[in-house]
Amino acid sequence: MRAGYFGPEGTYTQEALLTDTVGVELDAVPLPTTYDTVMAVHDGLVDTALVPIENSLEGSVNATLDALAMETDDVMIVGEVVQPIRHCLIARTSLELTEIETVVSHPQANAQCARFIRTRLPAARVLAGASTADAVRLVADHDGPWAALGNRLAAERYGCQILLSGVEDVADNETRFVWLARAGAVPGGPRVVASGAPPLGPWKTAIVFWGVGSEAPGWLVACLSEFAERGVNLTRIESRPRKQGLGRYMFFVDTEGREDDAAVAAGLEGLRGRVERLKVLGSYPAA
Amino acid sequence: MRAGYFGPEGTYTQEALLTDTVGVELDAVPLPTTYDTVMAVHDGLVDTALVPIENSLEGSVNATLDALAMETDDVMIVGEVVQPIRHCLIARTSLELTEIETVVSHPQANAQCARFIRTRLPAARVLAGASTADAVRLVADHDGPWAALGNRLAAERYGCQILLSGVEDVADNETRFVWLARAGAVPGGPRVVASGAPPLGPWKTAIVFWGVGSEAPGWLVACLSEFAERGVNLTRIESRPRKQGLGRYMFFVDTEGREDDAAVAAGLEGLRGRVERLKVLGSYPAA
Repeated sequence: MRAGYFGPEGTYTQEALLTDTVGVELDAVPLPTTYDTVMAVHDGLVDTALVPIENSLEGSVNATLDALAMETDDVMIVGEVVQPIRHCLIARTSLELTEIETVVSHPQANAQCARFIRTRLPAARVLAGASTADAVRLVADHDGPWAALGNRLAAERYGCQILLSGVEDVADNETRFVWLARAGAVPGGPRVVASGAPPLGPWKTAIVFWGVGSEAPGWLVACLSEFAERGVNLTRIESRPRKQGLGRYMFFVDTEGREDDAAVAAGLEGLRGRVERLKVLGSYPAA
Repeated sequence: MRAGYFGPEGTYTQEALLTDTVGVELDAVPLPTTYDTVMAVHDGLVDTALVPIENSLEGSVNATLDALAMETDDVMIVGEVVQPIRHCLIARTSLELTEIETVVSHPQANAQCARFIRTRLPAARVLAGASTADAVRLVADHDGPWAALGNRLAAERYGCQILLSGVEDVADNETRFVWLARAGAVPGGPRVVASGAPPLGPWKTAIVFWGVGSEAPGWLVACLSEFAERGVNLTRIESRPRKQGLGRYMFFVDTEGREDDAAVAAGLEGLRGRVERLKVLGSYPAA
């Protein structure tokens, strides 16, 4: 099985993939962006792929949501993995914190360590790379006193030193990743597929919907009520711009239950009558 | 009047400030991050300040939302400005696109030009700085074939060349900025305050609320219904993590109308009984 992931080697996504597929034979393929990772599934270059979708401090990974909603109709969420995130401050050689001129990481990691940077590295310029692993690679290649925020895996992979670990501002730092596959694939992710056993519950269903943009007051409430009235819990709601000017949004909703559970199916049916577009992004066993 | 803004000189925020305060005498103070800008109002270092809050392509400016919700209770939104965003590709000297090794900008600008970068600069490494202006400044200081995404103001301020303009992926690119001031300030922003005339409607009210985290199915719908039932339109809803683990969110809602309009006030009163915390972030004349 070929499994893509948001790379390069040493990302938290690779760490989550390794943790979640112990003992499973995989051909793991690093891809440069979450967009490329979603599209590699769409194009059949990989059988499955792992991408980050939500972090407990920084919220949604917008590029993942936008690609799933707007760039493809045949890539589904088939599973999820929740992974704790522990950022290390990483440099090419041993450095005093006061020597550090530039700190570089993925924008979400920079944001997760914003208070640490403000208080312990107040003079450092903050730059952001495409991923935490890319930042460590950049620091490994760079001559000056630069440091990266990333994980132990990347520090080892690129031959760097860990100056400090656990530098995130808040302890409850975890990221939810989702396994993707083409429509019709067996749900559950590589570990479940390899085991051959049917995935255990509970299940979740992810959807995205939008209206024509001139809805009456109460439209969104009426949409969400289709689930609440049937006792279906919503575990998450997120709005993202439709990219058609301010004030036009699409809404990502996760519900408890499976797409073909009676209450969820009835909720989806009710919702379909109220919206311009409704896409089911997948039903999958919860982490 | 001292007016802070998300700087350095040459940001889109400065451009919006200049556009919105023509003829108003101001002492404009660039500040390095949106967090610092919010806190400069909190600390009384400036009388008012302008920060970006939402872009039509990339959605919320999370650092602004998080600072307003969690870092201060006495900084209010008193006005808003909507400004079109036209990104230019900017370099120190004239360059062919194929020569560009690195493209640098604010993460939102990189995301707004993601397709342009993928298709026209496929070999370029993407880096992100603290602001579009900071990216232009970095490119101005750097020896190699680097380019920045930013505005004309920054290209002029830092003595750079514009290689291409209008490189954003979608034409409907605009950003909503908000004027901030300490609680009790006159609403409307510097132009309204300087004119002495009462601001014209329509008004909007921005709130943020959260529950204890173990709410029953339908809780969020019930919260939003407090407004829908009273005919108060919601112009926006956004969820952000509470930074206490996955699954715990705060909800930012913009409603039409003024905090002391009867229907809005009754909706807020009803909502207050359902939530752990409700903060009114401000009532202000809509742009």
